[in-house]
Amino acid sequence: MTGVDLLGYAAGAITSLTFLPQVIKTWKEKSAKDVSLLMFIIAAINEVMWILYGALLDNWVIILTNAIVLAMSCTMIFLKLRYR
Amino acid sequence: MTGVDLLGYAAGAITSLTFLPQVIKTWKEKSAKDVSLLMFIIAAINEVMWILYGALLDNWVIILTNAIVLAMSCTMIFLKLRYR
Repeated sequence: MTGVDLLGYAAGAITSLTFLPQVIKTWKEKSAKDVSLLMFIIAAINEVMWILYGALLDNWVIILTNAIVLAMSCTMIFLKLRYR
Repeated sequence: MTGVDLLGYAAGAITSLTFLPQVIKTWKEKSAKDVSLLMFIIAAINEVMWILYGALLDNWVIILTNAIVLAMSCTMIFLKLRYR
């Protein structure tokens, strides 16, 4: 594995956790008035596209990374609808 | 260009616009109390990693897509600090 590969894996790992601070904040504060529902709906649809893309390429890194983001996007949609 | 390529480009185009609804919402409502600052700081650092990765691979799709998300992340960091 080259340094470039390592950078890509590290970047991918961080990407998969990007929404986590928002999930934790909304979960704790039980308030999501200022959070955009549309952002997470677009993100969820987009993740399904990426998972399909990963499946067509048989690339498990793409599938797993985007499955994590999809799970967080769906969690945020649920939290937003609950704490609007 | 195959159908799989097209799906990848379409997914990438949507990814680059994911943060736009949040930027527009915060800009209009001038309130960002419920928005996670940490999420956008992580996203910004992550985009710099992806841009570096794209540059090392000489891949302009990766560079441009992530430059757009970086610009939106920085805009959200500015809006969050202004309208906390």
